[in-house]
Amino acid sequence: MAFSERISRLKSSLIREILAAAQRPEVMSFAGGLPAEAMLPRVEWADMPVGLGQYGTSEGEPELREAIAAEARALGIACEASQVLIVSGSQQTLDLASKLFIDPGTEVLVEAPTYLAALQAFQLFGAECLAVPQEADGPELTALRQRLEQHKPAFAYLIPTFQNPSAVRYSEAKRDAVAALLDEFNVTLIEDEPYRELVFDDGSATPIVSRLKTASWIYTGTVSKTLLPGLRVGFLIATPDLFVHLLRLKQSADLHTNRIGQWQALQWIGTRHYREHMAELRDFYRVRRDAMQRALLEHFSELADWEIPQGGLFFWLTLKCPLDTRTLLKPALEQNVAFMPGEPFFIDPEQNPGYLRLNFSHIAPERLGEGLQRLAQVVRQAHSAAAA
Amino acid sequence: MAFSERISRLKSSLIREILAAAQRPEVMSFAGGLPAEAMLPRVEWADMPVGLGQYGTSEGEPELREAIAAEARALGIACEASQVLIVSGSQQTLDLASKLFIDPGTEVLVEAPTYLAALQAFQLFGAECLAVPQEADGPELTALRQRLEQHKPAFAYLIPTFQNPSAVRYSEAKRDAVAALLDEFNVTLIEDEPYRELVFDDGSATPIVSRLKTASWIYTGTVSKTLLPGLRVGFLIATPDLFVHLLRLKQSADLHTNRIGQWQALQWIGTRHYREHMAELRDFYRVRRDAMQRALLEHFSELADWEIPQGGLFFWLTLKCPLDTRTLLKPALEQNVAFMPGEPFFIDPEQNPGYLRLNFSHIAPERLGEGLQRLAQVVRQAHSAAAA
Repeated sequence: MAFSERISRLKSSLIREILAAAQRPEVMSFAGGLPAEAMLPRVEWADMPVGLGQYGTSEGEPELREAIAAEARALGIACEASQVLIVSGSQQTLDLASKLFIDPGTEVLVEAPTYLAALQAFQLFGAECLAVPQEADGPELTALRQRLEQHKPAFAYLIPTFQNPSAVRYSEAKRDAVAALLDEFNVTLIEDEPYRELVFDDGSATPIVSRLKTASWIYTGTVSKTLLPGLRVGFLIATPDLFVHLLRLKQSADLHTNRIGQWQALQWIGTRHYREHMAELRDFYRVRRDAMQRALLEHFSELADWEIPQGGLFFWLTLKCPLDTRTLLKPALEQNVAFMPGEPFFIDPEQNPGYLRLNFSHIAPERLGEGLQRLAQVVRQAHSAAAA
Repeated sequence: MAFSERISRLKSSLIREILAAAQRPEVMSFAGGLPAEAMLPRVEWADMPVGLGQYGTSEGEPELREAIAAEARALGIACEASQVLIVSGSQQTLDLASKLFIDPGTEVLVEAPTYLAALQAFQLFGAECLAVPQEADGPELTALRQRLEQHKPAFAYLIPTFQNPSAVRYSEAKRDAVAALLDEFNVTLIEDEPYRELVFDDGSATPIVSRLKTASWIYTGTVSKTLLPGLRVGFLIATPDLFVHLLRLKQSADLHTNRIGQWQALQWIGTRHYREHMAELRDFYRVRRDAMQRALLEHFSELADWEIPQGGLFFWLTLKCPLDTRTLLKPALEQNVAFMPGEPFFIDPEQNPGYLRLNFSHIAPERLGEGLQRLAQVVRQAHSAAAA
């Protein structure tokens, strides 16, 4: 069988395989990024017009595009509804952007670490990824400037607000500095913000795209983290030079996003009951974040360092004695506990051992301690084995 | 702005632009392939479980996969639920298959004419398309054998049952012959069957994939033509050697298909009320097909030849005096009537003038005559202008 060249780059998804293993009910999973079942809102369908069963436009529902543009403007992003494309979850933005920009060998710039599924999408199309190390307040600026001086990436893919996996939120200063650098070198920005609304403190910062003066950009978001992921409704907003192509790529990919989910999203976006729901979500996840922090202090203080995430769904642990955390997966699953190894979030996994991503949204606080105790035991045994 | 090479192959979609123009309420449109609004079934959402709002698996909902596999087996396709992938409308099958097989320059085999959006998807990825002329009962077998002897296409893409645009249904004999040739030359078959259930006579024929002995295959279908296109729920069934890669490509494209639409599709597939609904659909469309035939006989007998379609949604007219039908589009729209020119359905449009695709599902029978009269007038004026 002669497949395309890209299939040789199609990696097995560790996430998918772990999630499959972690679906056994006896496994306590810190691996996924699933919203808590208890916080999935009850939604009403009774008022949905029958006509939404018909084909729709590739752009998406006009009212939903208007609502999303209004929300974006409220965030400081100057844009019109005509720049909004409704996508089948923001994962599709990565597919469309890959098609728009990436030939085999095309350079793209990402954070280190970065979102695993983005890395896989870019690499599937043959991207050569350049990485900029992530610090607690955003990217290392000297490294970023150096990459831009020495390379001409087709775009920079950044997740500046509660990044998956590192939970980093860029500071105001770094947002300004990154925008200035992208303008200076005329590099397109893809800004991915699934977690912006899951914020646990009063800190806030406008998107980087709102600070750009000349560079082209794509801003992408989703209702998956705040409403219902099963709807598969996300959006992108793009500068007009990119939008025209993204629209055609969307049409070729799947004609248009399902209209049922679009209608449901429209019932929420911009409404008071959505704001109330998000406030409840933040309270709920803050409690879980705090419980996780207490349990981590009890079980992982000697083993790892971490920052307390101010938003998102993950803790990002740095082992004090680094080892390839992928080797912990099998013994952890034998102890009925799942986590996400850190290595796959880097373009050079072998050079970045010793990180663990732990989700805190999905496990009830009273069960956390038991799971983390088991996981800590797995780490200790690996350390002992390495020392032996 | 440096885009990928494929963007240079990203054509403006004539269909999309015509549909946009044809959305003016005063335009009578024979252009699209939309189901009739009146036949969109009322669907119930009240019983949908809340848990479907959560993320799902890339494969699709297990019960839906089982139901689709059972339907396929009833058609004669030996398959298991594990070979079924739920996709975001069967357009996505074309995207996933393109990713699986096509590098720039990869040869693929298509019918002439073939489905426009498939041609565009394959060409976007850089395919070199080889065409086999379509006859009233299927492909020219000598041409097919010649292509297979002289080339090694990555796959053959065929729409054997009420093809869009030509409405051709392959005969039993041609189905057997095509299967034997694909087996002989070991060429993968992609069989696209959106229209199988929209059949107006008693004729029936099992899918070609059910006749293959050794070649790999993908069979794809959708609920868009028989239930609700707005759900964006389609499926593919593939041999296991292809399935494993298609699943990963699906995950990278959009994680999974929306679960709301999947649940709704499951309420229908394999049920008595779906069979009843489809019987009503057939009756409804048969009436429209017959009305269209009468109106065509009245207005186009001198201008064109055609076969009466035994299924699907289209008449395919061959002008007695061929001209580039794309040049008719502007004057037609000026007369508030829209149709689909035939040229874009061919890999070599300039060599295939003189075809028109006319949809009969979307216009009320009592309005047909007026629209076809206007369209015939546009054709006559073009002939007069050409003769002058």
